[in-house]
Amino acid sequence: MPTIFFYGPELDVEKKREIIKSFTETASRLTGIDKSAFVVYLRPGSMDMVGVGGELLSDRMEREKK
Amino acid sequence: MPTIFFYGPELDVEKKREIIKSFTETASRLTGIDKSAFVVYLRPGSMDMVGVGGELLSDRMEREKK
Amino acid sequence: MPTIFFYGPELDVEKKREIIKSFTETASRLTGIDKSAFVVYLRPGSMDMVGVGGELLSDRMEREKK
Amino acid sequence: MPTIFFYGPELDVEKKREIIKSFTETASRLTGIDKSAFVVYLRPGSMDMVGVGGELLSDRMEREKK
Amino acid sequence: MPTIFFYGPELDVEKKREIIKSFTETASRLTGIDKSAFVVYLRPGSMDMVGVGGELLSDRMEREKK
Amino acid sequence: MPTIFFYGPELDVEKKREIIKSFTETASRLTGIDKSAFVVYLRPGSMDMVGVGGELLSDRMEREKK
Repeated sequence: MPTIFFYGPELDVEKKREIIKSFTETASRLTGIDKSAFVVYLRPGSMDMVGVGGELLSDRMEREKK
Repeated sequence: MPTIFFYGPELDVEKKREIIKSFTETASRLTGIDKSAFVVYLRPGSMDMVGVGGELLSDRMEREKK
Repeated sequence: MPTIFFYGPELDVEKKREIIKSFTETASRLTGIDKSAFVVYLRPGSMDMVGVGGELLSDRMEREKK
Repeated sequence: MPTIFFYGPELDVEKKREIIKSFTETASRLTGIDKSAFVVYLRPGSMDMVGVGGELLSDRMEREKK
Repeated sequence: MPTIFFYGPELDVEKKREIIKSFTETASRLTGIDKSAFVVYLRPGSMDMVGVGGELLSDRMEREKK
Repeated sequence: MPTIFFYGPELDVEKKREIIKSFTETASRLTGIDKSAFVVYLRPGSMDMVGVGGELLSDRMEREKK
């Protein structure tokens, strides 16, 4: 029944598989709860939906490119 | 002011109405808080954004179809 | 694998049982997903940890009592 | 490291900038934690994904227009 | 119906009032939604329940004190 | 800026360190984002605050012991 939420960038399918597998195996080993009970939600957000340091991430990326 | 989040599959509009109505009525009755104070967020995730048992749900569904 | 979060007042054990049972049965029936796959998290917050209408809920309750 | 989630309507880019800036400055000042440590997630939901008072928000808006 | 979650340090009651008031006023002004519809949840976490940069925050604070 | 929430059982401090370290290293490697940008929130819930399969987890554990 443990649940993991990952708020981060969009990943390709191979990386999604790997992050879900790794999170679940680590958490299962440390909690002693069977892997079958784990759910992982990948919740991507684009850079214009996230603020870092008081600034829209897309603005910061734009500025840093210069 | 109570708030409910539902992370599950996408529902058609008739089912959305029913899940919101039922959750709100049950929670209002049990808490004694007026229905008008309840907010329900439906947060669907596609099967390639969820991991179950360490595996991408879309991979599992594909495998089980075979 | 669907997951429900309930942010609301603390409930006694009998009401916890009922809210979990009712949410799960409703959501299972509407999604067609087996009840065993559902997890419900009850996340209570005391009235001094919630703001409603720009005001601490505990302040509002105090004021309304008068 | 503080994190803020905003579940509300979609905003245009100018308003996103302002809400992120204001939330971060307020929270930084009140916690004494440097602004650079704050992350704000804007998580918009359309009106057919939110229930208020037991009713789909899009249904309510439709009714109120009449 | 917009909802704001604040995951950060524990605040004293005066600061709780101020953060709730400020978040709500800013978000109400920017969305055009009445203040009465806003709910803010303060969800504090102690430093031994948060990881930053791969490290328990309480460990980092301990180390930085030296 | 990625953020991970872990809703599961309470862990001792050594296991907290390990889960935070492992989640952060895996996610950093897969996203290409520096470890310093990651925040992990451990959000434990006791067994009388979680429902599984429509049943309070504490009830289920009690029953399975018999």
